[in-house]
Amino acid sequence: MNGPEIPESHPRHESLLTRHRIETGVDLGITSKQGLIAQGRGEAFDYLLGERTIPTADEAARAAAAHLLLADHPVLSVNGNVAALAPGEAVRLAEATGADIEINLFNRTQDRIKRIREHLRDHGAENVKGLTADGRIPGLENARAKVDADGIASADVVLVPLEDGDRAAALAEMGKTELVIDLNPMSRSARSATVPIVDNLLRALPNMTAQAEALADADRTTLEDIVKSFDAEAALEAAEDRIRNG
Amino acid sequence: MNGPEIPESHPRHESLLTRHRIETGVDLGITSKQGLIAQGRGEAFDYLLGERTIPTADEAARAAAAHLLLADHPVLSVNGNVAALAPGEAVRLAEATGADIEINLFNRTQDRIKRIREHLRDHGAENVKGLTADGRIPGLENARAKVDADGIASADVVLVPLEDGDRAAALAEMGKTELVIDLNPMSRSARSATVPIVDNLLRALPNMTAQAEALADADRTTLEDIVKSFDAEAALEAAEDRIRNG
Repeated sequence: MNGPEIPESHPRHESLLTRHRIETGVDLGITSKQGLIAQGRGEAFDYLLGERTIPTADEAARAAAAHLLLADHPVLSVNGNVAALAPGEAVRLAEATGADIEINLFNRTQDRIKRIREHLRDHGAENVKGLTADGRIPGLENARAKVDADGIASADVVLVPLEDGDRAAALAEMGKTELVIDLNPMSRSARSATVPIVDNLLRALPNMTAQAEALADADRTTLEDIVKSFDAEAALEAAEDRIRNG
Repeated sequence: MNGPEIPESHPRHESLLTRHRIETGVDLGITSKQGLIAQGRGEAFDYLLGERTIPTADEAARAAAAHLLLADHPVLSVNGNVAALAPGEAVRLAEATGADIEINLFNRTQDRIKRIREHLRDHGAENVKGLTADGRIPGLENARAKVDADGIASADVVLVPLEDGDRAAALAEMGKTELVIDLNPMSRSARSATVPIVDNLLRALPNMTAQAEALADADRTTLEDIVKSFDAEAALEAAEDRIRNG
């Protein structure tokens, strides 16, 4: 599934695959109308970025991988678009870093959560959090605040790809190390992140997995050096410069 | 309808109204999944433009209004997003310029066409073309090529807001004067236009209507001077510069 009919040699392979997956997400009831609009915004920013991973995004992916490997309790937050676009890629990153996967929806319904869990399981996820919802993120209205007490609520490092700005800011306020994947370097999500990865989800997740695998045997000092040498402000500026000036 | 619950004083009034209308379009079965993604792309470009009408877009709206007033047979092409976002605005521009309205869908189904016709009628449209489909645009595959023989096929000036690149290029190939509204100045639609209006549909259509009303009593020489003095290449460059350099 997920588009085997699109040959990899097709010049728009990545773009067509993305479209196919997001439309499947709608058909499966896991991607929302807002999710489709958000997908379009991402496409425009990716187009302006040149539809490739810029050097600072690659550095960010490496720093994010190091953060996940250093974490006591890393969690990958998965929303409807992430589940539709990159279910297998999210599962592989979780495996490479020992992270939990937690479903976290802006438009939360029990039905959508269950469909997403099913979709993630179809792609190899074994233990999916997000259904208990017995924890809260302070500073958000009730429906938006729900998380699992033994998931995001108690995580020290959280990867939030394609996250809403309010929630990204609230998570950062909790003192968590926040890793954000967002194609808009001017977004509040990107700006509130410890590590903003300004890249397409479908390039960033496999890149992070590869970096995590390459760093699997690294000692803490090496990982900490990678984390320390990453400059979030400079990465955001470089991405905005690429978008603005090509 | 179309969002009376959103007060005009709200700082994101225009953006929220747009969201409301496009979601209503989905609920009514007139906006497609592709339409939602396209809406998101437009949002990103509008954000980079500063969400306002830049001077060259204002000049383009004036030149487009002059073209419509000079035309023997002007037609406004309306797709699912235009019908959802600006049904009343499209009807008022048609009235101000004596243009026909023709429904023209990338994903054409008889059911969607009828729903869109109903929606346009609810907003005051009297005579809506696009159901006969007895004409063809050369150079496009069959489903994409369908137009009315007494509509777009025989028009000398066509306004195609938010048009797909293939069809915009094919219409330009037919030698028609093509007026395009598109927030991406690098798109093939914008680049194939006689007059590219790089602006938000909800700003551009009322602006064109106001310009047409102001020019209602102008003589042909005045209108022709407006048309001649518009420089499409310069307008596209100015828009791209605004997007790239803020």
